[in-house]
Amino acid sequence: MPTIVVEVMPKAELLDPQGKAVVGALSRLGKTAYTSVRIGKRFEVTVDGPVDDAILADVRELAADMFSNSVIEDVVSIEVTE
Amino acid sequence: MPTIVVEVMPKAELLDPQGKAVVGALSRLGKTAYTSVRIGKRFEVTVDGPVDDAILADVRELAADMFSNSVIEDVVSIEVTE
Repeated sequence: MPTIVVEVMPKAELLDPQGKAVVGALSRLGKTAYTSVRIGKRFEVTVDGPVDDAILADVRELAADMFSNSVIEDVVSIEVTE
Repeated sequence: MPTIVVEVMPKAELLDPQGKAVVGALSRLGKTAYTSVRIGKRFEVTVDGPVDDAILADVRELAADMFSNSVIEDVVSIEVTE
């Protein structure tokens, strides 16, 4: 069944506390090559039946309204995989 | 600066309660075309300097040990972007 992958990241201008914690841990481990870590979400939505334009438009709407909070997050990618 | 994108998903054989909640909400909204939703994580790691084999090997190790819990999650993708 086709799967639509939706990716959501915190907006670039916002502090990402989870990511800050990880990059802090990395530098304490002596791994100084990494300047920033940001952590977002990846949704795999499995569709029953073919992915047509209506489904894609619906998923785009869901991504904007339900999977992400547009105040603090951006939908960075919507991709159909098999 | 180059960014390495690491994607982590809950293992296929495990229940994903967040995803179950979303697919339940979708069906209550009358959107029955979606049979499953699984929610994972997306890490954007920014590297200071070029991404060579050493950095890639290091990120692969970090992805397995620090970004994911191998008991319940799989690293599904590690990709270098500019």
